[in-house]
Amino acid sequence: MGVVVNLDQERAKSSPLDRLAKLVEDDLKAANTAIVERMHSPVSLIPQLAGHIIAAGGKRLRPMLTLASARMCGYTGDRHILLSACIEFIHTATLLHDDVVDESDLRRGEASANALWGNKASVLVGDFLFTRSFALMVEDGDLEVLRILSQGSSILAEGEVLQLVTANDTETSESAYMEVIEAKTAELFAAASELGPVIAGRPKKEQDAFRAYGLNLGIAFQLIDDVLDFSAKQESLGKAVGDDFREGKITLPIVLAFARGSEEERTFWRRTMEELDQNDGDIKHATDLLVKHNALTDTVERARHYGAIARDALGVFPESDIKTALLDVIDFCIERAY
Amino acid sequence: MGVVVNLDQERAKSSPLDRLAKLVEDDLKAANTAIVERMHSPVSLIPQLAGHIIAAGGKRLRPMLTLASARMCGYTGDRHILLSACIEFIHTATLLHDDVVDESDLRRGEASANALWGNKASVLVGDFLFTRSFALMVEDGDLEVLRILSQGSSILAEGEVLQLVTANDTETSESAYMEVIEAKTAELFAAASELGPVIAGRPKKEQDAFRAYGLNLGIAFQLIDDVLDFSAKQESLGKAVGDDFREGKITLPIVLAFARGSEEERTFWRRTMEELDQNDGDIKHATDLLVKHNALTDTVERARHYGAIARDALGVFPESDIKTALLDVIDFCIERAY
Repeated sequence: MGVVVNLDQERAKSSPLDRLAKLVEDDLKAANTAIVERMHSPVSLIPQLAGHIIAAGGKRLRPMLTLASARMCGYTGDRHILLSACIEFIHTATLLHDDVVDESDLRRGEASANALWGNKASVLVGDFLFTRSFALMVEDGDLEVLRILSQGSSILAEGEVLQLVTANDTETSESAYMEVIEAKTAELFAAASELGPVIAGRPKKEQDAFRAYGLNLGIAFQLIDDVLDFSAKQESLGKAVGDDFREGKITLPIVLAFARGSEEERTFWRRTMEELDQNDGDIKHATDLLVKHNALTDTVERARHYGAIARDALGVFPESDIKTALLDVIDFCIERAY
Repeated sequence: MGVVVNLDQERAKSSPLDRLAKLVEDDLKAANTAIVERMHSPVSLIPQLAGHIIAAGGKRLRPMLTLASARMCGYTGDRHILLSACIEFIHTATLLHDDVVDESDLRRGEASANALWGNKASVLVGDFLFTRSFALMVEDGDLEVLRILSQGSSILAEGEVLQLVTANDTETSESAYMEVIEAKTAELFAAASELGPVIAGRPKKEQDAFRAYGLNLGIAFQLIDDVLDFSAKQESLGKAVGDDFREGKITLPIVLAFARGSEEERTFWRRTMEELDQNDGDIKHATDLLVKHNALTDTVERARHYGAIARDALGVFPESDIKTALLDVIDFCIERAY
């Protein structure tokens, strides 16, 4: 039992993401090398700008899902390396375009690419990364992989447009909001996770299990991101508190508080979120309203629900170090709210 | 001989594009239907915005190249329909992003999508069309087709970044400029043309021939577009004269005039193109300098050179109505300068 306690202490000290990274260490190094090599272009602005955002402290969570699911399914080849680079390119392309759309000056605590090189460069280098990601998929050449990734990116892009349409609309329903984040965030988690069993030639049941894991983890991840926008914890993540609020971005905490609020409170939300007429103290008042209606704690509860589904999805697999790490990642994504 | 004269009169009356469209009429109708169906999304902003730009008087030149090359190669299936829609989506995505990057308010004489719906929507719907085009390629499922289209879009995107880097640089050399337009314009013409022989299962020689046709036609097409920016003819095409000039976009006529100009003239080009310090009468003066140095007529001569290569590339094919129309399209693309 002493050993178990020591292992638990070991687990408690490092973050589950670090432990997962350690378990796929060599693959992650190879993936990082592939990412740098494959974003190369004689047009030097491309590796400069893409390198800035890719190097800027990303957790590599999405590519790690591909690496880990492949290993957990007993895959012994090297296709997962290029495919995880492909996932990171899709993710990076959307980050670049998100920052243009949101007019963000900061990304993970550093100046955003659009702040440094301008919107035009961010749009066009984002396009380059999108098209390069497709060239990487085609290099893999497996039609099931191509289907997963091309449909996945299409759903992601559709989700980004849907988010733009529902932005600043305080009447957004919980289900409409869930539809947005399932498409714009969770779909790429799902596709990344699903690739492992597919390239390992595992049965459909395991592919479905990993897809469900990724999808529900992605939803939980996004819900906690939404909560963090109103949390002091956020500053330690290199993102300013209240970014979503200042842009009038409707997230689940606000959907809940608006639905539960008085007419006077709804007037407040309409002024700040729809008309973007915001004054000093508004963000404090918004946070007070979210707390009053348990909107933040209930959003965390919703996240826990999806986390539980993600956990059960991996039930079809035998115990292993990687499985334990993947399960711990769920808790980590949720507990970072505190 | 009377009949020949009548046919020539008939040819002289209608534009070669119309004649080509007539020769692939049923396919073009099917392609238009596919374009509308495949840009559909429950997120209504997507078909609204994409439909606006796709409907706005585009010539469908690129998708027609796929339809015509397929037919000319004796292809009898229906894969060319979806692939031509795919080509149009890639083209439309780049138009949407170009208009954001160029801050254009007009596109083919109508309000541009970014002017109507804003830059954010144009960026994200452009992304959607890019990803949807990849989903269409994957639906086709042929790895050679996937290679041509994914590499083609990647080269196109790289060319867009290269153009951004060389924009406003009066020191741009002719060869650097040719590299930009080969990537950003001619590559998609080449890919579109190459698809026909590939899906028809024709020998590599015919694939290469159609690729050379498309590539050189695309270069000629772009060079004439550059000339048209300084031509009154332009207004009849629904584009304001001097758009490129006002943006400080360096094109071949300016590259030539700058290289041939006096130091005083170069100071003028630097002020207007690099510093974007432009006054009334500058565009008139710019046009006078281009005429003085034969920069417009010599750009047309360069276009004729590429047109001649495109013509010779189709020499490996026997005579046919479609071949005649494709050859006439070359002349049409060049002669529209006058």
